[in-house]
Amino acid sequence: MAAKEAETVASISCSGHGRAFLDGLVVNGKPICECNACFAGPDCSDFLPECVVDADSGDPTFLEPFWEQHAASSAIVVAGWHRMSYEFNDGSLISEELKTHIRQVHALVGNAVTDGRFIIFGAGATQLLNAAVHALSPKGAASPAKVVASTPYYPVYKEQTEFLKSEDYEFSGDTLLWKMSGLDSSSHSQSQNIVEFVTSPNNPDGELKKAVVGGPFVKTIHDLAYYWPHFTAIPAPADEDLMIFTLSKLTGHAGSRFGWAIIKDEVVYQRMLTYMSLSTYGVSRETQLRVLKLLKVVIEGKGREMEVETGSDWMRGETLQVDLRFLGPKVALEAELGSWRPNEAMEAEIKSWRPSEALEAEIRPSEALEAEIGSWRPNEAMEAEIGS
Amino acid sequence: MAAKEAETVASISCSGHGRAFLDGLVVNGKPICECNACFAGPDCSDFLPECVVDADSGDPTFLEPFWEQHAASSAIVVAGWHRMSYEFNDGSLISEELKTHIRQVHALVGNAVTDGRFIIFGAGATQLLNAAVHALSPKGAASPAKVVASTPYYPVYKEQTEFLKSEDYEFSGDTLLWKMSGLDSSSHSQSQNIVEFVTSPNNPDGELKKAVVGGPFVKTIHDLAYYWPHFTAIPAPADEDLMIFTLSKLTGHAGSRFGWAIIKDEVVYQRMLTYMSLSTYGVSRETQLRVLKLLKVVIEGKGREMEVETGSDWMRGETLQVDLRFLGPKVALEAELGSWRPNEAMEAEIKSWRPSEALEAEIRPSEALEAEIGSWRPNEAMEAEIGS
Repeated sequence: MAAKEAETVASISCSGHGRAFLDGLVVNGKPICECNACFAGPDCSDFLPECVVDADSGDPTFLEPFWEQHAASSAIVVAGWHRMSYEFNDGSLISEELKTHIRQVHALVGNAVTDGRFIIFGAGATQLLNAAVHALSPKGAASPAKVVASTPYYPVYKEQTEFLKSEDYEFSGDTLLWKMSGLDSSSHSQSQNIVEFVTSPNNPDGELKKAVVGGPFVKTIHDLAYYWPHFTAIPAPADEDLMIFTLSKLTGHAGSRFGWAIIKDEVVYQRMLTYMSLSTYGVSRETQLRVLKLLKVVIEGKGREMEVETGSDWMRGETLQVDLRFLGPKVALEAELGSWRPNEAMEAEIKSWRPSEALEAEIRPSEALEAEIGSWRPNEAMEAEIGS
Repeated sequence: MAAKEAETVASISCSGHGRAFLDGLVVNGKPICECNACFAGPDCSDFLPECVVDADSGDPTFLEPFWEQHAASSAIVVAGWHRMSYEFNDGSLISEELKTHIRQVHALVGNAVTDGRFIIFGAGATQLLNAAVHALSPKGAASPAKVVASTPYYPVYKEQTEFLKSEDYEFSGDTLLWKMSGLDSSSHSQSQNIVEFVTSPNNPDGELKKAVVGGPFVKTIHDLAYYWPHFTAIPAPADEDLMIFTLSKLTGHAGSRFGWAIIKDEVVYQRMLTYMSLSTYGVSRETQLRVLKLLKVVIEGKGREMEVETGSDWMRGETLQVDLRFLGPKVALEAELGSWRPNEAMEAEIKSWRPSEALEAEIRPSEALEAEIGSWRPNEAMEAEIGS
């Protein structure tokens, strides 16, 4: 019955510009099409000419075609009796099998050291960011730890830290102030507890960043969400004290709310475990089951070409330097428009359509970006790897 | 392929004292049995005679047999491309279909008013508890809101509130102090912001509780996790300002980490939405899909007998007054032991086994409980319903 339902919903035609889901709104007994941005109608065949796509949502929908092509190997069946208990059989909230597969993916890609490191799961990088801030801020210090990041930074750092503010930490904006204080060795700020977010490649500008605030009381959180070969070159495995990764940017499953942290220090690891336990009592078991299956597909694809519609060779080999601001619906939309054919009624309307100046400016890559893409060459290490 | 894997894993025999899972540890190419408490061995057939079951875990495993009996109708298939986006198509993090079905379950059971109320999802009641404390504590007040509960209370209230402490709230223990202050109308405490947890039926003692602290600055969080007919009689639909329910205690799926809050005030609802957004960016989409399926089974079962191994007529009709401390592994173990037959090699060993005095005392219902069970009769309203 479950398989039949899934097949039925997969067979509902939404003109290639939308999708019906098992848990979508039901009209006349079957789920209706949910249309992509700029499309409408019962089967998503109506193009909305005045539509402007929100390019900033960061939705990694450009990976959807990959999972459509691997539909059979990436599906899971969840039985009604699957993992009903609060804990796994070993008393933990974390699947050992999934942890093993995460280590395998990092070993395959070469983007992070996991040997001898602790691994913890969270509901997306989102939950892990605050868990890390919480764990790295000393309890009962004279003043709260200052949480900082280099501008421009991912706005959630500020929003989340301020919203969930505690006696032990507070968001303090840009790193610049603390770099300058650090130069002055007589300053009291030398003893200030600081937690620095380091995002590499950075969101929103794609820059490979390093920690900039130094001193004995500075802890770092390396947000490596985009440190995968489909976003950037991987010169060496990262080996930082606390590294955060997210499924959203690896496989594109943002809706699954799954991320993991790789941690060197056992005390920090234990504090983050306590946070997870008291915040949500771990990550949903059906999510852990699904992520395991998705990572198996990624691992099995080793050495195979994993072409997705961006034209990037996904996961290894030749990489595509992507301006992160241009990922998301816009890429998906462009890919779609490439293969999409209007029916006769719409053709006339489309032929007369011209992008507005504002839209054209937005879609066109900047000169700086064009120059960068034009001049990009793989480095020697990568060339050797590609050759082999 | 997904269906075949699921069938294979379901067919692995663990002697009725354990289970193999799709994401279990793999030995020689197949998942191994994970044994229930007090059983061991490759197929869980070894009984551990010195074993003492932890009766306090609260794991609702007594509902597992129900889902085994409804395996076909309760399974889901999750396609690799299912709901990859950060948001649902309407921009929210919450499935409208699932919300509709939650309202239907409450209407069917008659345990909560949902008409005209806001509904929000969380990763179990756990996440919603702190979201509610956060939302009900005024920002920037002269002193933090005092978070209180009547002893004996669910220990997570204290542990969570203290661990995630903020400038805006702090855990202050028992309600008694504030009841007494309330009597003294000249007291400054009249203007104190208070958030009271009301748990009904109470965990751990099963008592039907009411809010006890009164005053213009008192907000309540009604934790109604156990307000279902398989735990207690339902005299009337609850209609409190902020009510929290959890899937764990409705269907037994504690591992899914899914709960919901029913909220009267829109401002409180919006604050809790913000909390969910900045804490985890909503609840995993595969979890929402699975919960929808489980609730459909519950709703379809309306009027049918849903016998589970506790002997309770689940969901409606005759209810079983259960001492909450005795739920969980102990009930499951007793049910199991009832149908379990030893092989010859073990029989001799078992025949010579006697429970230790400590174990015997623990298993035996208290005199108070026995008297209560012996004297329990359905009330008139329930008798009429059963008769029909």
